[in-house]
Amino acid sequence: MWPFMREIVVAGETFSWDTGTSEADARAGWFRHGHEAGFTVVATDEDGTVLGTAECGPNHGGPGSHVASASFMVDARHSRRGVGRALGEHVLDRARAEGFRGMQFNAVAESNVRAVRLWRSLGMEVLATIPEGFRHPAAGYVGLLIMYQRLGPARQAGQR
Amino acid sequence: MWPFMREIVVAGETFSWDTGTSEADARAGWFRHGHEAGFTVVATDEDGTVLGTAECGPNHGGPGSHVASASFMVDARHSRRGVGRALGEHVLDRARAEGFRGMQFNAVAESNVRAVRLWRSLGMEVLATIPEGFRHPAAGYVGLLIMYQRLGPARQAGQR
Repeated sequence: MWPFMREIVVAGETFSWDTGTSEADARAGWFRHGHEAGFTVVATDEDGTVLGTAECGPNHGGPGSHVASASFMVDARHSRRGVGRALGEHVLDRARAEGFRGMQFNAVAESNVRAVRLWRSLGMEVLATIPEGFRHPAAGYVGLLIMYQRLGPARQAGQR
Repeated sequence: MWPFMREIVVAGETFSWDTGTSEADARAGWFRHGHEAGFTVVATDEDGTVLGTAECGPNHGGPGSHVASASFMVDARHSRRGVGRALGEHVLDRARAEGFRGMQFNAVAESNVRAVRLWRSLGMEVLATIPEGFRHPAAGYVGLLIMYQRLGPARQAGQR
């Protein structure tokens, strides 16, 4: 799955990673959850082709580790098939099941309108926009969104 | 300086790090700027005693690397002497000089009112509050603030 991950990273249009990130570093980061809390998943079709992937883990350590963050990549050759939505739903459900109390996305480029629309449809809200926080290769400086959703625990009736 | 850093990390009152962070991991993280963009500084008094320390580097990679983030620790035995303010002013000035266009703090516990007041006085604004994003050992769940300040480049007269 490195080929499509590399395309996404090199393009510099959606991910705030060094565009020269090596395969080894990308894999070490993406699959770090073998060592740390959290998880990494892949979405495949019937014949096992990897269509996309996501990773999720604590956004901060210690006293901030009950809020998760997650990252998503979908192979451009398999876009518009609902892969991102399936990954997003799965990650939110599993993060909730693992006891995370919230989900925070730290860096969604405002120009990535399909992603923003998708995350909103899954309940994520824009908490803040870092002004000119992302430098898109074509559009120039655009806002970088911080999105958030409460995951739980479920509130009791009458509880605030 | 590990003794006072350890106190701060173990207390879990202000830093969103694993409270069991080892000295080796803490040092490797705090001084990573020998290898990556950014810098680490210490504040000392006349006889060389370390009073506090700060580190600053890109908050994201690649297309997000023009916005900095920073962390600060002050030895509790030397608090209320302006160490945090001196470190904050220095870090903001140097980040601006190094060409960062903004400064973002990702995780300021709302309960850390002295820090919030200090950062506000240095021009940082609260962009968002992650609800219950920090679990204070005594106060329980409190908001986790994301603070931001534009650093430059300097705007021309008449420019918006």
